[in-house]
Amino acid sequence: MLSPFGDLFVVAPDLPRSGASHALTVTTPITVDKVRESEGVAVYACSGTPTDCVKVAMSCLLPRQPDLMVSGINHGSNSSVSVIYSGTMGAALEAAMLGMPSIGFSLCDHSLDADFSASIRYGKIIVQEVLTNGMPKGITLNVNIPALPFDKIKGIRICRQNKGMWNEDFIMKPDPVTGEKQYWLTGFYHNEEAGAEGTDETALSNGYISVVPTHFDMTAYDAIDEMKRLEKLYKDEK
Amino acid sequence: MLSPFGDLFVVAPDLPRSGASHALTVTTPITVDKVRESEGVAVYACSGTPTDCVKVAMSCLLPRQPDLMVSGINHGSNSSVSVIYSGTMGAALEAAMLGMPSIGFSLCDHSLDADFSASIRYGKIIVQEVLTNGMPKGITLNVNIPALPFDKIKGIRICRQNKGMWNEDFIMKPDPVTGEKQYWLTGFYHNEEAGAEGTDETALSNGYISVVPTHFDMTAYDAIDEMKRLEKLYKDEK
Repeated sequence: MLSPFGDLFVVAPDLPRSGASHALTVTTPITVDKVRESEGVAVYACSGTPTDCVKVAMSCLLPRQPDLMVSGINHGSNSSVSVIYSGTMGAALEAAMLGMPSIGFSLCDHSLDADFSASIRYGKIIVQEVLTNGMPKGITLNVNIPALPFDKIKGIRICRQNKGMWNEDFIMKPDPVTGEKQYWLTGFYHNEEAGAEGTDETALSNGYISVVPTHFDMTAYDAIDEMKRLEKLYKDEK
Repeated sequence: MLSPFGDLFVVAPDLPRSGASHALTVTTPITVDKVRESEGVAVYACSGTPTDCVKVAMSCLLPRQPDLMVSGINHGSNSSVSVIYSGTMGAALEAAMLGMPSIGFSLCDHSLDADFSASIRYGKIIVQEVLTNGMPKGITLNVNIPALPFDKIKGIRICRQNKGMWNEDFIMKPDPVTGEKQYWLTGFYHNEEAGAEGTDETALSNGYISVVPTHFDMTAYDAIDEMKRLEKLYKDEK
């Protein structure tokens, strides 16, 4: 999809990293192997996390800062709070932290034969626009594409992150050989504001591509005034 | 530190998880071993990430939602953007996502003989206050304690997350046996607003404990209007 836009450097994890979030590899070294280089595409496999891939690319592999960093496309949704568990979005945010425009793409379809053709067509439109007109610094775009054919997608909506959470996340199964209790991640998404205006979940359920401008300032500004009471408490103690 | 406040459940990773961020274990099961239980303290070792520990505790181990979830104390700062790489804060945020009041504590000292005595005294003050007066829902507190003796700490400041980033994050060292290139994480913190008013970095460098109310809505609301142009672009294409 990106080949027409310029020279590409692909630095990807060498195995699946679902749920890697913004994790780093800190207690062991990582390795990087060049897989191939031809026709303007250099491909590297990295033993680290998605965020490691961005850091090692910028620190050791790339000749200069790229014009755009693209993460994914992920096989499955990263809308709502899934942004915080997502390795795809962890890497996209890391690029934003390092000062690059970046976009994370996810298709809302986990199936092995998922159809990525609409993602490719819309992906090109979005990438071209961002390369042409730029993005605010320190921002990445969390783009989720509904599991629909191109003609059924109604358009693009700029959204906020939906309020919701994942519930009942582990089920116990005994190890088939030893009987040891093992816990497997599972769970279901609870939408705390189903149908609310302006959210990514609502856009997706209405057949739109959702684009959430996403940043890495996690300060809850709304809560600062209320929590100022802790400053006073300290004065009393002293 | 927490024993006087009530019954405690400790669910901790069974090995160091520095830089785990909000990562989940999804491709393998995790195990949980009860280490001990006595005098109101039950201790479990979990093979998963810090976030897994919270999820498995809530899903499988605890009899009810706890009154407070405390994460850490981490051995080293989690101020500024380190909040996003931190397993300590990943777990604290997960608890907030599940609807519990939560606090993540970090001491700004990596040394093996770091002095935690001031952290304990201030930790008790902060925990008592939050148990008494509560916290806004969906918020966690990112508490960083400067590496100072109790008498030298000037007080508590409610702060926003400082703008900054980690630079030059990997250095290459050949494997001592095979000569294979290996990359080790390193780097230095670049403060993009040194001395700015109201940030955690400024509070810490002035001898205060920093408390950043932290949430998991990563929407960059400031960028929504500018990025609305993508909605128009799509209409033109169609």
